[in-house]
Amino acid sequence: MSCNDVLVSVADIAPVILRSARNVLTPGFTTGERVIPHYQIQYIQDGFGTISIDDKEYKMRKGMLCFWGPGTKHQISSDPNQPLIILGIQFHMSHTLQPVRFTDFSGFPPVTIVHAQARIEALLRDIVKEYMGQRIYWEESAGALCKTLLLLLARQSIMSDGEGDVSWQMTEMILKFIEENYREPLTNEAIAKQFHFHPAHVNKLVITSTGVSLHQYLMNFRISQAVELLLSTSMSIQEIADAVGYKNIHYFSRIYKKKMGISPTMTRRQALSVK
Amino acid sequence: MSCNDVLVSVADIAPVILRSARNVLTPGFTTGERVIPHYQIQYIQDGFGTISIDDKEYKMRKGMLCFWGPGTKHQISSDPNQPLIILGIQFHMSHTLQPVRFTDFSGFPPVTIVHAQARIEALLRDIVKEYMGQRIYWEESAGALCKTLLLLLARQSIMSDGEGDVSWQMTEMILKFIEENYREPLTNEAIAKQFHFHPAHVNKLVITSTGVSLHQYLMNFRISQAVELLLSTSMSIQEIADAVGYKNIHYFSRIYKKKMGISPTMTRRQALSVK
Repeated sequence: MSCNDVLVSVADIAPVILRSARNVLTPGFTTGERVIPHYQIQYIQDGFGTISIDDKEYKMRKGMLCFWGPGTKHQISSDPNQPLIILGIQFHMSHTLQPVRFTDFSGFPPVTIVHAQARIEALLRDIVKEYMGQRIYWEESAGALCKTLLLLLARQSIMSDGEGDVSWQMTEMILKFIEENYREPLTNEAIAKQFHFHPAHVNKLVITSTGVSLHQYLMNFRISQAVELLLSTSMSIQEIADAVGYKNIHYFSRIYKKKMGISPTMTRRQALSVK
Repeated sequence: MSCNDVLVSVADIAPVILRSARNVLTPGFTTGERVIPHYQIQYIQDGFGTISIDDKEYKMRKGMLCFWGPGTKHQISSDPNQPLIILGIQFHMSHTLQPVRFTDFSGFPPVTIVHAQARIEALLRDIVKEYMGQRIYWEESAGALCKTLLLLLARQSIMSDGEGDVSWQMTEMILKFIEENYREPLTNEAIAKQFHFHPAHVNKLVITSTGVSLHQYLMNFRISQAVELLLSTSMSIQEIADAVGYKNIHYFSRIYKKKMGISPTMTRRQALSVK
């Protein structure tokens, strides 16, 4: 990226989609060497092939996502024996049409190659559908979908922390464990033990991906669940404390009030228009 | 909506999610009467119930979406015999935290009640996931997802054209028919006949939902498909013309050039970095 790049915050990405399609490359087809003055994402929906980016060759297989900036030389070839199915988009990062540098994210490397989550494939399918369908507001809609996709990639990049997919997948497993077991009494040690990690390492992974400590993350998750139970059930405060993993109702009430500013009982009362 | 509303273009909606959850209301539960100073969407994922909005009562069933602005009185009750499962979000339309009025869209009525598309349920599930998971960039990501959702609702509202879901679903069927049959020689008359409509009525529906005439929509769709075939296959121009519904290669080449500014052959040549 050059010094002419536009500086933006990740929150302010506003992608403009120039082209998007699902392409079926027949067996043994090659695109020839191409250079495009836009950002480009190519996702392998099915099949095998090879991609050469800036003269470096990579094997392509289902689930692989390639992302590069304007002016990157690339050539895609399908396997000789089967078709290669690609969901692709070309876009600008904003209406200024210039490459960007982020103020609050170390940025995507010139070439990103990752194994994509299922949500990313669904987003790409929707972008293709919007682009092809040309319904009213398709530009805005495809742009918002592309922004969601780029934020997921940025998140995955930060959570990977230079260690690739393993670190990201491990963090996702830890957070998922918390989200599925918050009803139980959990300690940092118990969570870490579950994954054969040192508690300090688990804490570091959680801070990287959520901005808060493991202890804080668990507490926030429990309080959010408590808010929902207060507003959508007639469970007692004691029952709710218990349901979100707090045996001690007084401790629960104290930290609830600290986080929400009001007591659990008040949350319930304030939701009603007739008090 | 009052005269203090902020004026924005639909493209500039930038929703801020305040709360989002999947709530399970136990059988026979009622929320009591509530008024919330934010926009709110409630989508029935499963079950039955009733909702009273500004003292008017509506039956709730799976797939139904309710959307209202700040300060709307509402009360939700689940069926006495089964739980009611709701995906809900509360949000501001922008960081200014004020209600908005649109410069380029007649706007959502004070209360919108529609049967939602499957894509809308998927978007709501992802917003809940982002809000609960609190991963880095969750605010931006949930905001972009909510924007996509609001654009789909705005589109559905415009395509319904005051005639409710029927008009929207009919237009979707017509556009889907074109997208699945563009390879065949199609005329406005043939398309209209398929749905027992007058061609002028079909044309009006297509203009409302895409901004272009039926003839233009079909042509744009065919040319987009031709671009993809030029860039991802080694088919001849004749074969491509044929594949996108044009028997006459000269006519195809002429309208291709008119729309794209360059000839089909040139599209292929210009894609290569080494010419």
